[in-house]
Amino acid sequence: MSEAPSERTRVRRYHWLAKYDTETIHGIIDAMPFAHIAYVHEGRPVVTPIMQWREGDTLYWHGSNASRMMRSVDGQEVCVCISIVDGLVLARSAYNYNINHRSVMVFGTARKITDDDEKRRQLARFVNGLVPGQWDRLRPVTDQELKATALLSLPLAEASAKVRTGQPEDDDTDYCFPAWAGVVPVGVRVDAPVADPRNLPDVTMPPEVLSFRYG
Amino acid sequence: MSEAPSERTRVRRYHWLAKYDTETIHGIIDAMPFAHIAYVHEGRPVVTPIMQWREGDTLYWHGSNASRMMRSVDGQEVCVCISIVDGLVLARSAYNYNINHRSVMVFGTARKITDDDEKRRQLARFVNGLVPGQWDRLRPVTDQELKATALLSLPLAEASAKVRTGQPEDDDTDYCFPAWAGVVPVGVRVDAPVADPRNLPDVTMPPEVLSFRYG
Ligand SMILES: Cc1cc2nc3c(=O)[nH]c(=O)nc-3n(C[C@H](O)[C@H](O)[C@H](O)COP(=O)(O)OP(=O)(O)OC[C@H]3O[C@@H](n4cnc5c(N)ncnc54)[C@H](O)[C@@H]3O)c2cc1C
Ligand SMILES: Cc1cc2nc3c(=O)[nH]c(=O)nc-3n(C[C@H](O)[C@H](O)[C@H](O)COP(=O)(O)OP(=O)(O)OC[C@H]3O[C@@H](n4cnc5c(N)ncnc54)[C@H](O)[C@@H]3O)c2cc1C
Ligand code: HEM
Ligand code: HEM
Repeated sequence: MSEAPSERTRVRRYHWLAKYDTETIHGIIDAMPFAHIAYVHEGRPVVTPIMQWREGDTLYWHGSNASRMMRSVDGQEVCVCISIVDGLVLARSAYNYNINHRSVMVFGTARKITDDDEKRRQLARFVNGLVPGQWDRLRPVTDQELKATALLSLPLAEASAKVRTGQPEDDDTDYCFPAWAGVVPVGVRVDAPVADPRNLPDVTMPPEVLSFRYG
Repeated sequence: MSEAPSERTRVRRYHWLAKYDTETIHGIIDAMPFAHIAYVHEGRPVVTPIMQWREGDTLYWHGSNASRMMRSVDGQEVCVCISIVDGLVLARSAYNYNINHRSVMVFGTARKITDDDEKRRQLARFVNGLVPGQWDRLRPVTDQELKATALLSLPLAEASAKVRTGQPEDDDTDYCFPAWAGVVPVGVRVDAPVADPRNLPDVTMPPEVLSFRYG
């Protein structure tokens, strides 16, 4: 196990679940596009659900240039959390119930990216990361749309992960207690695409839409 | 549509998706036990994944009495967000891509509950809310375990919801653009329970375990 990159990213509770290696952290980030970002607004905490994507050691997200969140976080400290639930862990005591999960917490200063070429390139990565090749199939993004869109970035320098797998860890003396123990695995279910009734009669669904999955 | 309960809970972006009525807000909270809580620690924002449950107009969550999060939030302003992803919305332009979702954001002051009877009662609600009747099947919670456990509460007085459903809303002029548009619905998949190999030979799984589902 590698070391925590900083004092505040060192996992204390259930610290044996901690991982600090790039492979684990990138793996969780890449598996789950949905995240939650915390920031301080007028002295008070706010958490907002967002979508994120990654290139190298940088996390990205997008939104409106007029949004409170996007305006508040530029140049400010934020904390982004990505969490994946893998199962409910039923122990022999309520105290030892748990959740199988993979989660990442990142601390750092968010920065707005203003270069138009870089904005376009990153937004294309975002779209193509969900549905491969989709960017080029769409009505091209206009300059006005690009202007209305804010792109934020966060270095992944201060990140930690927690990963729990497997069966409950009960107290030694509880293994003789006659309660059923086990795991109920959970995941993300992606259902069959539903076409927009307003599609033109001759358009067909790109097969890449079927590769959208996460978790 | 009812009114926002306060100025800071008034949805500005995509405000036509806003809901402030109790039925919608409680419905989302009750459907999704996983939440993210933001708080300010040493002047900086932190967001932590937690599990939540509700009774009446109060939200509850639990953790260690020694945890940074649990100690930091007592008597402090927090923001809790519960978000459910229902689908990827593929529009004819990348700009109009969206996510079908149900989300709730709550602001308020968290309070620790210290009464032992109320702690036990709420923890039983939490367990039974996931697997009906399970609390009484488990090795009873000890006084020492109860002491190690912190129970926090948050009034639901300042909450808002955003709900998006259905097909993309493209620009009028884009409906003649020959891109496939539609929705890929997603949800939570609950798989078959996996028994702990260390279960006693004569224990059987309570059928209520199969009623665990969320989302
Ligand atoms: C889906 C899910 C549900 C959870 N439900 C609960 C719950 O109901 N009650 C509860 O007490 N805890 C829950 N947890 C664990 C929770 O997220 C915290 O890890 C735990 O509460 C300890 O918090 P703390 O502030 O004491 O962390 P500390 O261990 O003091 O945090 C120190 C540092 O460790 C790292 N860290 C902490 N937590 C995480 C994390 N989850 N992922 C990655 N890095 C982390 C961060 O860098 C943090 O700054 C849940 C986690 C997940 C993923
Ligand atoms: C799964 C998911 C993914 C999302 N991905 C993105 C993304 O990638 N980029 C993006 O810009 N936005 C995304 N959103 C929407 C995002 O959560 C915010 O609603 C949006 O960014 C506007 O933020 P704001 O700070 O400008 O909100 P404002 O509208 O200024 O917020 C004012 C008040 O409205 C309420 N509010 C705001 N957002 C929500 C919410 N989601 N649920 C309930 N109440 C709310 C709160 O009370 C808040 O204090 C996503 C939402 C969900 C649920
Ligand atoms: C996979 C592709 C995309 C997805 C899934 C997506 C999803 C979202 C979501 C969920 C929101 C929040 C809406 C709300 O507040 O309720 C949003 C907002 C926004 N998106 Fe995207 N988006 C995508 C691509 C893009 C692209 C490529 C652009 C720009 C060219 C863009 C520009 C914007 C803007 C400007 C907003 C803010 C709208 C407002 O608040 O008025 N999006 N997006
Ligand atoms: C459905 C039942 C429950 C579930 C799913 C559950 C889940 C969890 C999870 C995910 C954590 C975080 C572990 C981590 O930090 O990685 C946790 C911590 C904790 N839980 Fe529970 N829990 C349940 C019931 C209970 C009950 C009934 C009690 C007390 C009687 C309890 C006491 C605690 C304590 C004290 C911690 C903190 C442990 C520590 O940080 O050392 N839990 N729980």
